[in-house]
Amino acid sequence: MTWQALIYVTLKGSVLDPQGTAVTKALHAMQYTNVHDVRVGKYLEVVFDADNEQAANEQVQAMCAKFLTNPVIETYTYRLAEVAS
Amino acid sequence: MTWQALIYVTLKGSVLDPQGTAVTKALHAMQYTNVHDVRVGKYLEVVFDADNEQAANEQVQAMCAKFLTNPVIETYTYRLAEVAS
Repeated sequence: MTWQALIYVTLKGSVLDPQGTAVTKALHAMQYTNVHDVRVGKYLEVVFDADNEQAANEQVQAMCAKFLTNPVIETYTYRLAEVAS
Repeated sequence: MTWQALIYVTLKGSVLDPQGTAVTKALHAMQYTNVHDVRVGKYLEVVFDADNEQAANEQVQAMCAKFLTNPVIETYTYRLAEVAS
């Protein structure tokens, strides 16, 4: 079976986000002064094979912990969907 | 009212994604050879004020079209939620 994982990676709340601060300031300069806060993260779409949903979940978590995210400063959530193979 | 927009920005399907290709190759080198494809995008969380849901939607779409995305090569989706102000 083929699966698609949509992975959202964000900096942990306690970690400074200079890129988000820069975007906030740029939006203010464009007169969007009602913007309070911007946080910038990564979004990954991963298509892969797995025998069943449990194996698919385990693989996504392993890939995120080992490679796709930095667990010291980042956190992630994901959604998993089966796609037509 | 205060709103939070969760914005997912991806390269259009017809645009080459070298970063995604690099991630795919790295996962293959880590023995995750069942991974077929990775696309890398941006994820933004924007907190801002707006009078109502329609004004909030309009502001998100304007910010995305003018600054947060490059409409030539990128496409985006977003979710909007009211947050306690």
